[in-house]
Amino acid sequence: MNKAIILAGGQGKRMKADMPKPLFKVLGEPMLEWVITACESAGISDICVIKGFKGEMIDDYLNGRYTTALQAERLGTGHAVMQAVPFLKGDTSGNTLVLCGDAPFIDEATIKEALALHEEQGNAVTVITSELDEPFGYGRIVRSGNGGISGIVEQKDADEQQKLIKEVNSGTYWFRTADLVELLGKITNENAQKEYYLTDTISIAIAEGKGAGAYKSSNPDIIKGANDRKELLEFNDYARMKVIEKHMLNGVEFTCLDGVIIERSVEIAQGAEILPGTILRGKTVIGAGCKIGPNTIIENSTIGDGTVVNTAQIYDSEIDSDVNVGPFVHIRPDCHIGKSSKIGDFVELKNSSVGEKTAIAHLAYIGDSDIGRKVNIGCGTVTVNYDGITKNRCVIGDNSFIGCNTNLVAPVKLGKAVYTAAGTTVTRDVPDYALAIERGVMKINEGYTIRKLKTKQGK
Amino acid sequence: MNKAIILAGGQGKRMKADMPKPLFKVLGEPMLEWVITACESAGISDICVIKGFKGEMIDDYLNGRYTTALQAERLGTGHAVMQAVPFLKGDTSGNTLVLCGDAPFIDEATIKEALALHEEQGNAVTVITSELDEPFGYGRIVRSGNGGISGIVEQKDADEQQKLIKEVNSGTYWFRTADLVELLGKITNENAQKEYYLTDTISIAIAEGKGAGAYKSSNPDIIKGANDRKELLEFNDYARMKVIEKHMLNGVEFTCLDGVIIERSVEIAQGAEILPGTILRGKTVIGAGCKIGPNTIIENSTIGDGTVVNTAQIYDSEIDSDVNVGPFVHIRPDCHIGKSSKIGDFVELKNSSVGEKTAIAHLAYIGDSDIGRKVNIGCGTVTVNYDGITKNRCVIGDNSFIGCNTNLVAPVKLGKAVYTAAGTTVTRDVPDYALAIERGVMKINEGYTIRKLKTKQGK
Amino acid sequence: MNKAIILAGGQGKRMKADMPKPLFKVLGEPMLEWVITACESAGISDICVIKGFKGEMIDDYLNGRYTTALQAERLGTGHAVMQAVPFLKGDTSGNTLVLCGDAPFIDEATIKEALALHEEQGNAVTVITSELDEPFGYGRIVRSGNGGISGIVEQKDADEQQKLIKEVNSGTYWFRTADLVELLGKITNENAQKEYYLTDTISIAIAEGKGAGAYKSSNPDIIKGANDRKELLEFNDYARMKVIEKHMLNGVEFTCLDGVIIERSVEIAQGAEILPGTILRGKTVIGAGCKIGPNTIIENSTIGDGTVVNTAQIYDSEIDSDVNVGPFVHIRPDCHIGKSSKIGDFVELKNSSVGEKTAIAHLAYIGDSDIGRKVNIGCGTVTVNYDGITKNRCVIGDNSFIGCNTNLVAPVKLGKAVYTAAGTTVTRDVPDYALAIERGVMKINEGYTIRKLKTKQGK
Repeated sequence: MNKAIILAGGQGKRMKADMPKPLFKVLGEPMLEWVITACESAGISDICVIKGFKGEMIDDYLNGRYTTALQAERLGTGHAVMQAVPFLKGDTSGNTLVLCGDAPFIDEATIKEALALHEEQGNAVTVITSELDEPFGYGRIVRSGNGGISGIVEQKDADEQQKLIKEVNSGTYWFRTADLVELLGKITNENAQKEYYLTDTISIAIAEGKGAGAYKSSNPDIIKGANDRKELLEFNDYARMKVIEKHMLNGVEFTCLDGVIIERSVEIAQGAEILPGTILRGKTVIGAGCKIGPNTIIENSTIGDGTVVNTAQIYDSEIDSDVNVGPFVHIRPDCHIGKSSKIGDFVELKNSSVGEKTAIAHLAYIGDSDIGRKVNIGCGTVTVNYDGITKNRCVIGDNSFIGCNTNLVAPVKLGKAVYTAAGTTVTRDVPDYALAIERGVMKINEGYTIRKLKTKQGK
Repeated sequence: MNKAIILAGGQGKRMKADMPKPLFKVLGEPMLEWVITACESAGISDICVIKGFKGEMIDDYLNGRYTTALQAERLGTGHAVMQAVPFLKGDTSGNTLVLCGDAPFIDEATIKEALALHEEQGNAVTVITSELDEPFGYGRIVRSGNGGISGIVEQKDADEQQKLIKEVNSGTYWFRTADLVELLGKITNENAQKEYYLTDTISIAIAEGKGAGAYKSSNPDIIKGANDRKELLEFNDYARMKVIEKHMLNGVEFTCLDGVIIERSVEIAQGAEILPGTILRGKTVIGAGCKIGPNTIIENSTIGDGTVVNTAQIYDSEIDSDVNVGPFVHIRPDCHIGKSSKIGDFVELKNSSVGEKTAIAHLAYIGDSDIGRKVNIGCGTVTVNYDGITKNRCVIGDNSFIGCNTNLVAPVKLGKAVYTAAGTTVTRDVPDYALAIERGVMKINEGYTIRKLKTKQGK
Repeated sequence: MNKAIILAGGQGKRMKADMPKPLFKVLGEPMLEWVITACESAGISDICVIKGFKGEMIDDYLNGRYTTALQAERLGTGHAVMQAVPFLKGDTSGNTLVLCGDAPFIDEATIKEALALHEEQGNAVTVITSELDEPFGYGRIVRSGNGGISGIVEQKDADEQQKLIKEVNSGTYWFRTADLVELLGKITNENAQKEYYLTDTISIAIAEGKGAGAYKSSNPDIIKGANDRKELLEFNDYARMKVIEKHMLNGVEFTCLDGVIIERSVEIAQGAEILPGTILRGKTVIGAGCKIGPNTIIENSTIGDGTVVNTAQIYDSEIDSDVNVGPFVHIRPDCHIGKSSKIGDFVELKNSSVGEKTAIAHLAYIGDSDIGRKVNIGCGTVTVNYDGITKNRCVIGDNSFIGCNTNLVAPVKLGKAVYTAAGTTVTRDVPDYALAIERGVMKINEGYTIRKLKTKQGK
């Protein structure tokens, strides 16, 4: 079976953060996750991640999804891969891909096509390469006459002729697994840095007459690695534009991209419009004809067709079709909003269901509640779901009309077509078709203002 | 009289939307509207729009403003113009401009100057051209010795010499109307595509010895047509920057353009400052010295001099001078806010008037109300304008002071200098200078918390 | 002692505003302030600002910090500097730097290194220069054989050879103060414009055999001056990016820069993340690991480590560590929020202190109040701090629980572990551990909805 080893032990000192470099995020996901996704999409699920600096953070992130191996000392890329030898020995029948955990733009096609060449040529090792207009600093691929390779020359060792070579090493390789194990046993640290270099496996393979080849990818971005925050920002911009362009090709409308951030995992139907300042994260699905933004965050939520979300934040919730949300709305996790409802300004919802055609138009908090269809929630309504010790639910039946500044003290159940008078604190259940009213006598105190002003002036 | 024919039958398949291409929007207006505006500003109001794909959407959009003609089958640009022959025959005395409905950047000066040349040269047809640095794909203008033209050569028919020509056909033409009718009768579909090409009228005119000329515009943008969402985004960016640059020249301050979208129709006085994320739409007028944004939407509204609007959305309303709006404010249609008032955070206004120097500082909903001068609206005040069946108005006199969390149950009228006590639900009119108070007795239940905790722990 | 003269008399007609050009802002500060900062950081505090057009605005801005001198008529740069002769004569022992008030990117290193050269060479005058790829329009520095200068040639006077010179005059000069006074007395207005040119001092110095040199700065931005709003926008963009890049180098995370504006004075600790649309102004300090934005304004405030601020505006306040703020929060001046507190959606705070681990989760206004630790402020709570005449304070003790839609009528003091029932208006002090409740009897009016609908239908 084919396997992958991802090198994720680096620190990234120029990032100035106490975190392994492959955990820095590009478009909301660690670079390591981008590399894993490329492997998985190319059909490789048997993966060993080599951790080093702050290795426990790699374990925490992976949460048991893949094998990890610790490189306790930083003694070179060859040494890093050596830590995976037990992982490799489990099954040496196939091929192993070695990748860099901080080069997120490796792609499925490159991995698959390189493997095809690797197998076709019967190579012990196949280095994945690409051409750069400005190859300075990269290891150059020296081709042999027959399209194979005779070696990889590092910048500092390259002669003038070799410096002109534009084909460079991406740091990603396919090995025949059995050969990799064998070659790792042969590399040494007899060099200035006293490190074990993975690239030495190639010269050894060539010297031993094992097949060594190179697959040149047409995608030079596979080579990109981020070393500081500025490069990381460039990665984010690059990934951001690629995702947005994909959606444009699919018929999504954008009239200004400023502040628009859409993670890879988001689906958007044709004909939706995304306004500036919209951030879509995680497993979010946007329906056809939606109008989303400006200045909106939607995370792990599903938005039905034709729904409008204007200046809102929605987390882990489901909004049905033709709902009108916003502006200035906060929908917290575990809400479900029914079709054709309206969630207006300064409304917070949390862990609640709202039926079809219900209006919560302004200045209300609905938490831990189940609200029926065609309900009207008055301005200033508060579900008093917390008594300082436990949280309880409110239930409101279909066609009810909740008056302004009503307190619904949970647990409480209002039946169908219930009315509550403005300013009422509802403390017990209300049957169908009833009015709940708590109202004192309003007194009028004539001339009050005149007396008040006199008193104050008298002071 | 001079006329125009606008070709608006195309589908724009790469846009991936069920809509005629000329209805796609650039800076808030369909491309068709940009073309119409150019015609109107050049003095041409007698316009026939040729519709085809989803033609009913063109009719819906135009809403009777201009004549339309249906091209039921897509048999070429010549065939499209043939559908306007009845429109042309109504008056053949003048000239007719033929334009593309999806090339929005045609401008008044080009139209007028091309007509001047057309008439001066006594041409049957004058093609409007411009020079492109990269003319690949466009019909090249082959000039005759005397500055006239000897033909238009399409990319696929051009020889090496002709491919070097940078002057290209914009697809916009002036015709002498009588000649256009005659020439349309002579073009045929005897070609590979079996289509009627409008450009054939030019070769026929030349062959018949009628005058055929070309007007070269200095504005190459007139040639641009959008075929996919990415090009449409470029159009939006281009139009956006042109509008913003106009305002900068007029003395409007911008310190960061990110997310700033200002439609063509907006007027902004000198010395106003526009912050990032500001979207100004429709017939909006911004006064001198205003500070607008960030993250603000203003639509069809007038903002007086010196007013500050910070993070708000304002629709179809009028805000007088020196008003302070925001942050987090929603002003819905039909509001009028008087001079030197303050509309603070988490306030919604709808269909209401607010007098001068009135403060609605926080967390309030004012709907269907008339509020006087120097009124103070307490936090949490709600105008209860809807009883579930009808909407009613609240009236509040000058110098009144509405206590916090007051409900004003409409219809209700408060006189001058009225006070309402915090938490009061006002259900009947209050005379001038009176206090309205609905207040129960506040009881103190000593040791409550200790007992509560004991009970809960006992559970 | 060394001194500086800053020329700040220009109008900037193309800006279209009634304001001296040096007062136009770059990244929130007048260009004049940038020039002053460069002087101060180079150790020069004895500064005379030459004012002219709308000179009183310069005085208002400086507010007595530096000497000013009025150039009543605009008779050239030499004439402008002449207005500072009394300032110069106060102490002629050192050197004087002359700068343009509308060229904000002069830097400390350039000033210091130019002075070192000036003193080393014993010059009467040393012009500060830099090289431009496109020097058109600038005065060219004609070098003498020994690395000194033989003159400055203006664009209109330059011959073909001189036009090729890329080293240009920045308009900034070091003079030996005594020589400057003397040289100013020798320049005349015998030229086409009838103006006194400061550059004439250089040719006079050379003619008299006094030392005249040039210091070439490696920073060509020192030459940039803004003449219209578009150039001013470019200055803002340039300054904006420079500040952001500095923070990136320090380990601050940015994933999209759109709408991010960070003034020079802001400090951000390593590992903080800044989201799009974030504006940080004035003396703001952001702690390590904070997550700020999107769409947030923080002005003159300190934010502790690990605090999250999502879509909020915070002015002149102090937020401790691990606080969760937002979304849609407005914190007005003079607030202090304790560690691990939560300020949730649609909350306004003003002139208040909030203890550790206190939650103000939604829809509340807390003004002029002191809130203890571990307090829970219910939704809809309002501190009634204003009675229409004076503002008073509310005090809430530790561990209290304020019920929803509570009005706290200030001045009022709630003890420790106090409860208030939902909907209560608290009008007098509440002792420790007590419950305050104002509650009417809630009545249920059965069949109300049926009767209401019948009545309405009967109308």
